[in-house]
Amino acid sequence: MTSLLLTGIGSLVTNDPTRGDLLGELHDAALVIDGTNIAWVGSRQDAPEADAALDVGGRAVIPGFVDSHSHLVFAGDRAEEFAARMTGTPYSAGGIRTTVAATRAATDEQLTANVSRLVTEMRRQGTTTVEIKSGYGLTVADEARALEIAGQFTDETTYLGAHVVPAEFQDDPAGYVELVTGPMLDAAAKHAKWIDVFVERGAFDADQARAILQAGQAQGLKARVHANQLGEGPGVQLACELKAAAADHCTYLTDADIDALASSGVVAGLLPAIEFSTRSPYPNARRLLDAGVTVALATDCNPGSGYSSSMPFCIALAVRDMHMTPAEALWSATAGGAASLRRTDIGHLTPGARADLTVLDAPSYLHLSYRPGVPLVSQTFIGGRPL
Amino acid sequence: MTSLLLTGIGSLVTNDPTRGDLLGELHDAALVIDGTNIAWVGSRQDAPEADAALDVGGRAVIPGFVDSHSHLVFAGDRAEEFAARMTGTPYSAGGIRTTVAATRAATDEQLTANVSRLVTEMRRQGTTTVEIKSGYGLTVADEARALEIAGQFTDETTYLGAHVVPAEFQDDPAGYVELVTGPMLDAAAKHAKWIDVFVERGAFDADQARAILQAGQAQGLKARVHANQLGEGPGVQLACELKAAAADHCTYLTDADIDALASSGVVAGLLPAIEFSTRSPYPNARRLLDAGVTVALATDCNPGSGYSSSMPFCIALAVRDMHMTPAEALWSATAGGAASLRRTDIGHLTPGARADLTVLDAPSYLHLSYRPGVPLVSQTFIGGRPL
Repeated sequence: MTSLLLTGIGSLVTNDPTRGDLLGELHDAALVIDGTNIAWVGSRQDAPEADAALDVGGRAVIPGFVDSHSHLVFAGDRAEEFAARMTGTPYSAGGIRTTVAATRAATDEQLTANVSRLVTEMRRQGTTTVEIKSGYGLTVADEARALEIAGQFTDETTYLGAHVVPAEFQDDPAGYVELVTGPMLDAAAKHAKWIDVFVERGAFDADQARAILQAGQAQGLKARVHANQLGEGPGVQLACELKAAAADHCTYLTDADIDALASSGVVAGLLPAIEFSTRSPYPNARRLLDAGVTVALATDCNPGSGYSSSMPFCIALAVRDMHMTPAEALWSATAGGAASLRRTDIGHLTPGARADLTVLDAPSYLHLSYRPGVPLVSQTFIGGRPL
Repeated sequence: MTSLLLTGIGSLVTNDPTRGDLLGELHDAALVIDGTNIAWVGSRQDAPEADAALDVGGRAVIPGFVDSHSHLVFAGDRAEEFAARMTGTPYSAGGIRTTVAATRAATDEQLTANVSRLVTEMRRQGTTTVEIKSGYGLTVADEARALEIAGQFTDETTYLGAHVVPAEFQDDPAGYVELVTGPMLDAAAKHAKWIDVFVERGAFDADQARAILQAGQAQGLKARVHANQLGEGPGVQLACELKAAAADHCTYLTDADIDALASSGVVAGLLPAIEFSTRSPYPNARRLLDAGVTVALATDCNPGSGYSSSMPFCIALAVRDMHMTPAEALWSATAGGAASLRRTDIGHLTPGARADLTVLDAPSYLHLSYRPGVPLVSQTFIGGRPL
């Protein structure tokens, strides 16, 4: 255990609410990492001694991104489906089955290598925590396998047996719900922290979703929900009723949905890269924020509806197309993601927090939206260790 | 001079019109670089011997991006102006003066370092040719200095003394046009290949622009025009009248403008990162393409209206928001850029062309729009040399 002083920080985003503004931003700052955690944060001239020092030359330092929604355990890609969609074929949840077939046919090694490649890609873009869902296996063995593989890369594993009804259960959705809440859950629960359901026309309705989430909760899993992506629906209300941690997508919301989110404390996860890649209207982040809802930004990286792994891209879209301020967007991509995962040790840079942080090739976090598409990550530290 | 065989190319985009489809795409292909140029292109199994070989493992290879519009010689940034714009302050051409003041105050070394940083950033994103304009000096000495610095990084240098009327000429725009067409042109011409004018309300009108472009043409410079960015106007028609190489922006066009572009052969440069960063409507690429206009995509990288250096980002926007197909967008970002710069040696990978190419961390060029925001460049070669 050695300590490292990061100094010459032009702008340091702490997300420390005691510092006044939303981001708790310090200028000409320094920070000490001791082992895996942050030991000290403050002005450069007040910095204590440390075993080693690194001057970042005026660059900005931000908390690592917390990507609270992804689907990384899969095989194949759907580039041709994407190209067809861009010339007019609409997105539908049924395309998930294409990836299910490819994923079932893949070896453990192929799936693990694909997750490894995508997690590495995310880390290079400044993501330090990623939630990973199953959901392209949809058999007892394939869901358990997906979660075991995901668990090699993150503690935030989510059982999504209820992603879509697989083809072999097309005429027996009730039978599939029995499987998801019975043997598949038994096999998945030991590898998962969360349980999730895709509540949508073409996927699962409110009654099915309630049964699935409650079965998971009974086995100690915590709930999160895919809600209100393709139209208004019961997903958000169900998430609030079951005290889920998060309702993700939230593209189509009624006033009652917003009231429910605000009063329940359920985090609204917004996934603008999906709207980008499905050419859909963006969720109204302004309406959620003005109502006092906690908002998280995440990639939803998956091979069908949106295959971006880039949190900076999501931030740029949030500012441009969802009318979040650059500060709100960064907060939602870091502290908001941590809230969505009910984590208090990440998403902020204050003494005692995990030393998960990203050094930007830019003087300010503003550049994440001011310079869209440009790779701006200079260096990422996870648990105090540089990548 | 040694030869290098690139093999194992999953998808090779040649832009060779003799191969049938728009992109002249080959699968399971190979390519030989001899010195600075392409010597051979074809199927992997037919590849000739070479001094060395590099297997790219099924990755896609595309022509390097030709970014035909950028403003890289400047100092300072305008991140705060961007943040204000995102909360409602509209973009106006007048903001250019902020950068003019910072640029005049900077040393040669500071300006050169900034261009170097941005050109390096572009190359890492797959750009192998970039046009660079002056236009933030707006004095005889500062414009000449900007072009000299730009010339250290590219042959495609553009004199843009007519970017905006500087503050000191606010009450004497005619006097500024005299300067731009007189002593400033004399000083700039030896360092520039192109001359450009920002034709726009708040910048230069058609008569001023005509005088400026004709003065440049008389000194051997070739014309390009900033046209129809903030509203309909005379820029496109002027570009066609003067046989300019390109009319860039083309955000607001009449039917007559489109007819003029189609019949004149002037290339329409579309710069969607600007519409992204100014939250403006996108130009209608479909209408231009369907009329037979040659379209180039470029970044317009500049500190005011849009500070992206990313051609992949422009491609993703072109597909999502301008309804170009992924193939059309890639063509416009490579061959289209070459057409805009009237270059025949770049923008395609055929025997005899310059070996300017980009290896993608992806099996197909489709991933440039399918995976928005993700850095996908594995390696870039410029004139046969790997970066």
